[in-house]
Order: sequence, then C-alpha cells, then structure tokens
Amino acid sequence: MISESDILNCFQHLVEDKIDSLVLVGSGDDAAVIKSQKANLVHSLDISKIHTHFPNNASPEDIAFRSVAVALSDLAAMGATPSFISVGLTSNKKDINWYKKFTQGIQSVMNEYQIKLVGGDVTFGEINVCVNVFGYINENILTRSNAKPGDNIYITGQLGRGRKGLIDWSNGKKSSFVQHYFCPKINFDKSKYISELASSCIDISDGLLKDLRSICKLSKVGAKIFYEDIPITNDIDDLSYGDDYELCFTCPKIYAEKFNKKDFFLIGEITQGKNIELIKDNIPVDLKKNGWDSFE
Amino acid sequence: MISESDILNCFQHLVEDKIDSLVLVGSGDDAAVIKSQKANLVHSLDISKIHTHFPNNASPEDIAFRSVAVALSDLAAMGATPSFISVGLTSNKKDINWYKKFTQGIQSVMNEYQIKLVGGDVTFGEINVCVNVFGYINENILTRSNAKPGDNIYITGQLGRGRKGLIDWSNGKKSSFVQHYFCPKINFDKSKYISELASSCIDISDGLLKDLRSICKLSKVGAKIFYEDIPITNDIDDLSYGDDYELCFTCPKIYAEKFNKKDFFLIGEITQGKNIELIKDNIPVDLKKNGWDSFE
Repeated sequence: MISESDILNCFQHLVEDKIDSLVLVGSGDDAAVIKSQKANLVHSLDISKIHTHFPNNASPEDIAFRSVAVALSDLAAMGATPSFISVGLTSNKKDINWYKKFTQGIQSVMNEYQIKLVGGDVTFGEINVCVNVFGYINENILTRSNAKPGDNIYITGQLGRGRKGLIDWSNGKKSSFVQHYFCPKINFDKSKYISELASSCIDISDGLLKDLRSICKLSKVGAKIFYEDIPITNDIDDLSYGDDYELCFTCPKIYAEKFNKKDFFLIGEITQGKNIELIKDNIPVDLKKNGWDSFE
Repeated sequence: MISESDILNCFQHLVEDKIDSLVLVGSGDDAAVIKSQKANLVHSLDISKIHTHFPNNASPEDIAFRSVAVALSDLAAMGATPSFISVGLTSNKKDINWYKKFTQGIQSVMNEYQIKLVGGDVTFGEINVCVNVFGYINENILTRSNAKPGDNIYITGQLGRGRKGLIDWSNGKKSSFVQHYFCPKINFDKSKYISELASSCIDISDGLLKDLRSICKLSKVGAKIFYEDIPITNDIDDLSYGDDYELCFTCPKIYAEKFNKKDFFLIGEITQGKNIELIKDNIPVDLKKNGWDSFE
C-alpha cells in the first residue's frame, strides 16, 4: 500500500524549495508564503471530478492537465495573468505510477503557462481534483456585470471543438479535437488585449448561451446574437455545450476596429431588456423549444 | 433533483457582494479579486473526506466547521493571521437542507475567526471538502526548519482531547471533548505571541511524535522529550494521535521566562543528532516497540 508521503514525494520536484521573487516558502512547511505584490490578487477554484468532468478511463496526465487548464480559464476571463496554483488531489489509485504520470501532466501545464505550484494536499477516495489558481490583474478587472446596451458581443474562437474531441476520443479516433478537449488552450494573450477595451467578459465553460446569460443577468441587459456569425464545429447544440474555454466578451462599438476578424468573432450586440435572442435565417429561434428555456 | 445553482444559492449570503477594503470582486463572477496587501500572503489547503477525516454520520454543520478549522490551523503554525477562505465542496446529498446546514457551519467558523468567504465550487460525489485558507504574516514567518540544538520545545495545550472527543461521540456521550473534536479551537493569539520569539513551529495535526519529527528532519536536529511533562488525556498513544491542533514550537532558552506554565507546556529540548528520544520514568521509551518506528 502506498502512503500519503509516497504520493507527496511525487510532487516534491514540482514545488521549488529555493526562495525566489514570488515564493518565500514553497515546499515542506505548513503553508506557502507568497511575497506581497503590487497588483490585486485574483483567485478561483475548480473541482474536476471523475464521471462528471472527465471520462472514467482518461489518462492521469490528461486529467491533471485538463483540471488545471480549465481552472486557469477563469483567470483569463477576469483579465489576469496566471502566477501560481495549488492542487488538492483525491484519488483511489494504488499504483504509484499513476501519481507519477499525474505529476507529469501538472508539470506540462505549469510549463505551458509559466506558473508555479506552491502547495497541495492528497487523500484517498473517488478521483477528484480541486485546483486553486492565482494570478494578478493586468490592466482592468474584467467582470460580468458591466455590459451596456449597444455593446458588441465577441467570442475568441470556434465553439464545439471540445464536444467533438470527447466524441472522437470515445470512438477511439485520433484528432486535433481530442487534444483540444484534454488540453484546452487558454487565451491569456487575448485576455490581456481585451482587458484594456472590453466592458464585460466570461469564459465559455458551460456553453455560450448559459454563459452569455450570466453576463446579461449580472449586467441587467439582454442580447441579440446571430447564428450565422457564430463559428461552430458540429451543429446548433455547440451553442449550449461547454468544454471550449473560449472567451465571450462585450465591448463598446467605438473599439470595433481593434478586433480583427481572424482572432475575434463578432456575434451580436447587447440590448435593453433581459432576454437573449438567437437569430437564425433571419428568424428568432425558440430557445424553449430547443430545451434551452433555462437560458432565457 | 437539486441543481448546482440551487446549492450555490445556499452560499450566496456568505459571499459579500459589496466592495470592501479586502475584497474587490467577491460574488458571482469568474474569480475573486483581493486587494493587494503589504504583508506577505500565506496560503494552505486541506482536504477533509468522509470516512477518513470525519465519521460517516457527522452533521453537515460539524463537517463544515471542522474542515475549515483544521485548515486554518496551518496558518497558525506559520505565524499568520487568517483573512479569507474558499471552499470546494463535493457532496452526494440530494436534500437542499443538508447544504443549508453546511453553510451554517461555514458561517459559524467565519464568525469565530473573523474571516471572509471569497469563492468556491460545488459538484456531486462522495463527500469531500477542499478548504483553501489565506492569511497574512504577523511578525516573522514561523517555519519548521530553524530549530537549533539547545532550544526548548513547547506545546500549547493538552493532547488527546480530540481522540477522546471522537470516542465519546461514537458512544453517544456528550462531553466537552466532542466539541473539541468537531470544533477545534485554533490558537491565533498564541501563534501571534510565539511568532516574535520561536525558532520553529508546527501544528499537531498528525500527532506530536510525527509532527515534532518533521521539525527535526527539516531543521536537521534531534529532540529529547519527557513523558511526565506532556499534558495528556488518555494514555501514551495521545502522543501519536492527531486531531488536537495545538502548536508545537521551539524557542531559544533565553526567552524561557516569556512562556508561563499555564499557557505553554515545556516538554523537552532540541538536541544534536537526528533522533527523537522520549523519556518516561527516567528511561528512554523504545519507539519501535510501540509501533512508532516511523517517527524515529
């Protein structure tokens, strides 16, 4: 039987024990000590659970990478640059190699986003990864609550790729979509660019319709979006499916020229009122009929 | 079936949405934004899992309170004042009242330690509470790695009370020990006092012998402790049992007069070498014989 300290040893090389400009105490103590920074701290956490957030037989590397990447997405949505993470891992695996591979996934995502691991905890049980992410605000805080009628609505990329990735993977098919599902690319460059211009922002983790609904609710506005302007992969259900981690943001029209068509997709505009209107073939789509009534 | 948003609604009143001196964005957005502070940030996380960290039929209030309190204990061990927390809750309960009671436990512990809740996540599964705690350093950072030969070793309170509390509770007996088990009192006042004087510190979460061993290992020293000087509740096994969350710290002898006998128990001294020696009736106890060989 492997012990808690066997598992913690797998993580040891990821937690630097040398003092640097950010981390004063990193490894082996009761807590991490992070040097005071001038910028405001942004913190979010995301639980990724087996069955619910990734398939049963996903590899430990993929579980680790994906759990951290999707948590980082919330920092991008706030206009923050990622800085460090901590990980609470629950797992019922009894093979130490599983943990070694898990830490390889953590290492990959740390390298990808140039972030540090400052702490963690492990325990035995149904696989459950609680990832805490920390970053610092770039320019402005990008909230969900400041969209104004007349603002343009943009998304940063094609929807439905994660959805197709999971289907391809389930069918044993290799495709770039599978990579997109397990290792979603979080757009920190775009987030930084947007943070100087946008009035509101959210990451599309629960599907465009639900996440845009959250902006509308908190900003007390409505939205009109055009199906033909939304880049999709599969079908109209890509609008209500998550797993893409693109950003959806709103911006005053005066900045429209700042957003080229290659990197940013203009999909509609913010309206007065409080409903989301989806236009397809010049006709409003009945969201209720599509089983999307919770997004109205 | 209750939804994720039903559960999140139970927490809503705990997360302030007004801007204050600490929290710039607290509720409803992708992440929390914490105003930059002058002191260094201390962060730790602890997973509390059903079966492992609390009994199956513990009440939701007790699960919540205890999970947060034991996580806060790591801040006390670092010499930090607690400031805010975030909670990742996994639960398979389908009754919304369970979540309402859970949040009452969170509210109690927030009131007890004057801390804020800045964020969280919920998902369905085997009960698992990942608590993230944050605080700021008072005077000096209290690490585990700076104990010196000749330093006195102190503990802040009686051992074995948590152990007795769990036994009493299992037997349906009401006692102050039960309260001690579910709502351990974290000694932030003592931690602050100690932080100006101590050379090293740890919280006794895994049992005195194991935790003192951690100080010795990281400080590259040994220790000699005297059984008759250690305040216990049950028997000698109180030295290897956790669940008390008292502090164990070391301090140069020149400060000995600063520690009165009522609040601080002098139990031994740091030695050269690397072993822990437990003296009982003037004779060294064979730790291996007691099944404590992992503490040697």
